Amino acid sequence: MDERSYKLGSNRSAIRELFEFSKKRKAIVGEENVFDFSLGNPSVAPNPAVNATLIDLLQNEDPCLVHGYTSAQGDAETREAIALDLNKRFGTNYKGNEIYMTCGAAASLVITLKAINDGPDDEVLAIAPFFPEYKLFVESSGAKFKVVPADLESFEINFNALEECVNQNTKAIIVDSPNNPTGVVYSEESLKKLASFLEKKQKEYGHPIYIVCDEPYREIVYDGKAVPHIPSLYDNTIICYSYSKSLSLPGERIGYILVPPKCHESEKLYLAVCGAGRIFGYVCAPSIFQKMVAKCTGLTGDISEYARNRDALYNGLTEIGYECVYPAGAFYLFVKALEDAPAFSERAKQYDLIVVPSDGFGVKGYVRLAYCTKYETIVNSMPRFKALFDSYK
Amino acid sequence: MDERSYKLGSNRSAIRELFEFSKKRKAIVGEENVFDFSLGNPSVAPNPAVNATLIDLLQNEDPCLVHGYTSAQGDAETREAIALDLNKRFGTNYKGNEIYMTCGAAASLVITLKAINDGPDDEVLAIAPFFPEYKLFVESSGAKFKVVPADLESFEINFNALEECVNQNTKAIIVDSPNNPTGVVYSEESLKKLASFLEKKQKEYGHPIYIVCDEPYREIVYDGKAVPHIPSLYDNTIICYSYSKSLSLPGERIGYILVPPKCHESEKLYLAVCGAGRIFGYVCAPSIFQKMVAKCTGLTGDISEYARNRDALYNGLTEIGYECVYPAGAFYLFVKALEDAPAFSERAKQYDLIVVPSDGFGVKGYVRLAYCTKYETIVNSMPRFKALFDSYK
Repeated sequence: MDERSYKLGSNRSAIRELFEFSKKRKAIVGEENVFDFSLGNPSVAPNPAVNATLIDLLQNEDPCLVHGYTSAQGDAETREAIALDLNKRFGTNYKGNEIYMTCGAAASLVITLKAINDGPDDEVLAIAPFFPEYKLFVESSGAKFKVVPADLESFEINFNALEECVNQNTKAIIVDSPNNPTGVVYSEESLKKLASFLEKKQKEYGHPIYIVCDEPYREIVYDGKAVPHIPSLYDNTIICYSYSKSLSLPGERIGYILVPPKCHESEKLYLAVCGAGRIFGYVCAPSIFQKMVAKCTGLTGDISEYARNRDALYNGLTEIGYECVYPAGAFYLFVKALEDAPAFSERAKQYDLIVVPSDGFGVKGYVRLAYCTKYETIVNSMPRFKALFDSYK
Repeated sequence: MDERSYKLGSNRSAIRELFEFSKKRKAIVGEENVFDFSLGNPSVAPNPAVNATLIDLLQNEDPCLVHGYTSAQGDAETREAIALDLNKRFGTNYKGNEIYMTCGAAASLVITLKAINDGPDDEVLAIAPFFPEYKLFVESSGAKFKVVPADLESFEINFNALEECVNQNTKAIIVDSPNNPTGVVYSEESLKKLASFLEKKQKEYGHPIYIVCDEPYREIVYDGKAVPHIPSLYDNTIICYSYSKSLSLPGERIGYILVPPKCHESEKLYLAVCGAGRIFGYVCAPSIFQKMVAKCTGLTGDISEYARNRDALYNGLTEIGYECVYPAGAFYLFVKALEDAPAFSERAKQYDLIVVPSDGFGVKGYVRLAYCTKYETIVNSMPRFKALFDSYK
């Protein structure tokens, strides 16, 4: 038996652990009395076109075709539709054959990292705070995982820290913007600075350093904020996308990898992506969801619901006295804990408030609140947050 | 870049390569003039309950729940339903929490092998002929892949060859019955012999040797033939299942792993499965398909259509003069090639007959014909097979 797998299986991710606790607690005190901010499970319904398209496929198409194998890299029509949508929005010139369909964000990352990395000395960086499973995904490719410490002022990129982390072995840096867990959208200025820094380092070391964009929250932004399209700023960028959040389909596992043509040896790299998909048994993403994406890529649910939640939660908590990062995108609020984060999360549970300590995200002293909940959950949680706050006086 | 991934991506699996060739050829000469026996893409429609259940979920349930995250190991109701169905059919006493939902057979195998293997000396056996991607799946767990040569008489298990392959490092043997590519269903006698052989070897080496059952074809059997339930014959058996073939959903990626309670340290092993799922980013199988499975597990499409195809193909080819293994299950016919298999497959292409050479399956000198095609394809292909046969005179 593999001891590491056993340990990972028995120490479930902190987020999943809280999710299970909350399910049990709801069964005891009632759904409406547990204020669960643990999981990024979208509360906004999918755009109505999603279910309408699925029903149409099920009612009117040959079921053997609807549910049949697609090409390993994905349905050609779907990949063309995605390329067209991206080109329209970002002024690019992508082709369907630069896209590889996957079973969602985790699959996109695991496959991409495997395709990039080729030895045990390779290093992949993540900027803290980051999604905790990145560490596993990087290690599954055989590379080392390295954390760039956070900029605790702005939660943008900490360039001094980054400079110290990059070396001859650096193969990639994962960029997650809009960011989980802070909701920060990296500014174009930051990303340009990152691009020119990495270009310098590529020349110095004589090999590509990829930006791996994990961007499931790309369409979830507020106040008209634009998310810069990183491949337009830096050639060696690979996009890992998932429809989990934009189309509110977290459980359905559908996404893609885009290897833009400006990437170093992009055609070869695309083939490496195909090969890595085979190694992990990941070929052919769920077929009916691929066919739905051909019609629905680029759509979202009603983002204004998240915006209302953000304002209610941010305003409510700051009025009580909590310190939070103001989020421009995604659906997370990063709140300063009033003691050590795991202890704070434990104490919050006594008030039936489920919040995720930041330690797993590579930063100490914060908790993450996912506000993709019912609006009422936020409003009704405020007296509990007040009581929790007062308990520290 | 990872050279191995690149090579695997550029040398596509022989099956997928032929599938792509056939698609292109159909575009030129017309669908009805290409006789494609390359891919195990079920031709029998799913049981009507499948689409009816999916439509019901889409029309009548909260879309945020239908498409939301389930627990990492899968929806509790679904896992209970699967356990109940297995118990009813096999007289067992499985529980939902012994089942881990996956994105299909490949995922089931990759995760299981990772959970079992813990070092580079570990060896996993497959009995030739076998599904070619097994080699990749075993290697993704860090173990060595080793082939037990075929019994070319019966295509049952070659016990003399097996005896030579098992040693102190053997951690598992993959058993695929009904077999892809031969259609042979291993007899209860063979499996009991395998069980007592492995029990002896476990004692000798002092560690478990698992049978990993890859059984997506379990329900696709003819003439009232029973497929023995291997966990009832041998304790250290893990089931890797997929609904791709039984429910005719090959593109939808839904299946499960069953870790029976009689397995050595089964609870710990189940947790290792959970951990291995995390490592490869495989947690939470597609949600709506999990919910469909809760209602449809145990159902199949109309298997008699495959039986009719089998008879038409087997009788037609043997009348021409070809030698074939008579298949009791799955939907493959294993036919003796009239020269070296790759050359034979190449020559067949000139007659627009698409057949897969056996070399990738670990046996030389045969081709695999998937007869999950239209009945007419089989009937109309006969003059081509005759012409191909005559070309060797």
